[in-house]
Amino acid sequence: MPEIRSNPITGDWVIIATERARRPEEFTQKAHKPELPPFAPECPFCPGNESKTPEEQFRVPAPDGGWLVRAVPNRFAALTPDGDVERHTNGFRTCIDGVGLHEVIVESPVHNLTMARLSLPHLEQVLHVYRHRLRAFYKDRRIEHVILFKNCGEAAGTSLIHPHSQIVGMPVLPSQLRARLEGAMRHWGNAGECLYCRTFHEELRDGTRVIAENASFAAFVPYAALSPFHVWFFPKHHSAYFGDATEDQLADLAAVLREVLLRLYVGLKDPDYNFVIRSLSPQEGALKYFHWYISLIPRVTKSAGFELGTGMFINTSLPESSAEFLRRVALPV
Amino acid sequence: MPEIRSNPITGDWVIIATERARRPEEFTQKAHKPELPPFAPECPFCPGNESKTPEEQFRVPAPDGGWLVRAVPNRFAALTPDGDVERHTNGFRTCIDGVGLHEVIVESPVHNLTMARLSLPHLEQVLHVYRHRLRAFYKDRRIEHVILFKNCGEAAGTSLIHPHSQIVGMPVLPSQLRARLEGAMRHWGNAGECLYCRTFHEELRDGTRVIAENASFAAFVPYAALSPFHVWFFPKHHSAYFGDATEDQLADLAAVLREVLLRLYVGLKDPDYNFVIRSLSPQEGALKYFHWYISLIPRVTKSAGFELGTGMFINTSLPESSAEFLRRVALPV
Repeated sequence: MPEIRSNPITGDWVIIATERARRPEEFTQKAHKPELPPFAPECPFCPGNESKTPEEQFRVPAPDGGWLVRAVPNRFAALTPDGDVERHTNGFRTCIDGVGLHEVIVESPVHNLTMARLSLPHLEQVLHVYRHRLRAFYKDRRIEHVILFKNCGEAAGTSLIHPHSQIVGMPVLPSQLRARLEGAMRHWGNAGECLYCRTFHEELRDGTRVIAENASFAAFVPYAALSPFHVWFFPKHHSAYFGDATEDQLADLAAVLREVLLRLYVGLKDPDYNFVIRSLSPQEGALKYFHWYISLIPRVTKSAGFELGTGMFINTSLPESSAEFLRRVALPV
Repeated sequence: MPEIRSNPITGDWVIIATERARRPEEFTQKAHKPELPPFAPECPFCPGNESKTPEEQFRVPAPDGGWLVRAVPNRFAALTPDGDVERHTNGFRTCIDGVGLHEVIVESPVHNLTMARLSLPHLEQVLHVYRHRLRAFYKDRRIEHVILFKNCGEAAGTSLIHPHSQIVGMPVLPSQLRARLEGAMRHWGNAGECLYCRTFHEELRDGTRVIAENASFAAFVPYAALSPFHVWFFPKHHSAYFGDATEDQLADLAAVLREVLLRLYVGLKDPDYNFVIRSLSPQEGALKYFHWYISLIPRVTKSAGFELGTGMFINTSLPESSAEFLRRVALPV
């Protein structure tokens, strides 16, 4: 019988369609991606083309004088960096000036390197840049909320192949975040505990959906996973703000993230995916009831009218099977 | 300057990325869809293959003894029709038995006919079947909520080409609907008016985003449209339950729906799309603060990590331009 599972953090129901569930192997990507060169002369993110991007905001230098990671404003920014944030109300309608920050984080000079194949020290550097830019964005008084995300591959909505992430700072708090905050506050009020801490403690105790774990991080398939191989990364240390992560914590996050990305890369043959870092601001960092985390969704299925109309998802893979499959992937030494 | 617009019904913010906005024509589909035959021997929805579907629940007969529209259980149903709905709580985790109804509504015997090209009387028959199945689903005491939707084309998540819609009855109220209900109730409490009635009255008064209108229905691009050519269809008569629509109202809905589908078909060259009917149950039909409606999203752009992480959307088309473009499409006589 199918199960309808409740996501404790969002209150959303997910249909785990056991009757039509597919085996984890069936989500393996069939189409081979085209072989790409390590350098593409026309790519604005390749070394030598630095002048094609707007002015660099931050870089991790390479020993040879080049760079390992760069942060640059997005040439096609969704928001404009100039001006004050004004709110306009015209009768029934409300709009806010589209002021905000939007940068691209180029993760490597190598055009065809996917994040799963970055070295561990290199991935750590990428996370350092994430933290640096997040902190910098929140220094701008106009910014209410910052979202950090990665679109990897065409099915995940990227147009540029060169490995990169994006960070957007906006002058409003998205309603999805507000709803999560309200839910977390309600749980704190009722149970006197952080809903997120409780969630990953339950996951670690149960163990069937855990994929990887170290001193500071745990990665697991959520009990009510939205889609096959949906993964949550939780810091074990309670904090609502990613910018407060220490060096040791970033190193541990890099290790867990790399392990999961490699397991997906090898086990499912390089699926496209999105991930997002959900974090509040530095002012909210000490909140007892919210917890920052990362959510990763491989794009191995498509959402359609049902999801659009209900906000609910139908997952055709059993979360426990997805996790077991990923744990068993033999990684290259 | 980009605008961040507020959706009055959901409270969601949408970034209208005016700086990188594309002209409406630029969303015209480039790839021609393959020519399809009017009959496909292996298609389970084609005439002659009726035995390939589970037992038919309803049909609109054709004068020749065949059928015009059929409703059949989905062979790959997400929920099972048998059994009671039990709720299981295991410590922190909650799950409900996946009991529910899931049918396919085959809209025409003709394999290659898209909904935009159905005759007006035929489309009216499809809407009659929608209403019939919705009413029938709500007679089942186990059903809390019914969603009716259509996935048209591969980008919209369909696997079967033959024109069809789906209806799912489930034993839970999706949290997205609960949030809309709460918002609508709050607006009623504050303003003493239906938020939805107010919304379409404002749209009709403003006029810049209206696409089509008749005695009982209005179709317009929402002020805070999620994506290019997003369309809302609102009944002018206040009701929370689609099943209460009268014959005249269904005829008017068919006319407006067909006009908008044709404008999309001709103007954008047959884009894939999803639509959903958001309606409450018959018991809730008389609620003063909720209003049933249809939301249609052409799949001309992809959502990615930003949308996933925030629930906000970036729309690269100005809603007023989308509406004007659709109004100006020259329809075949």
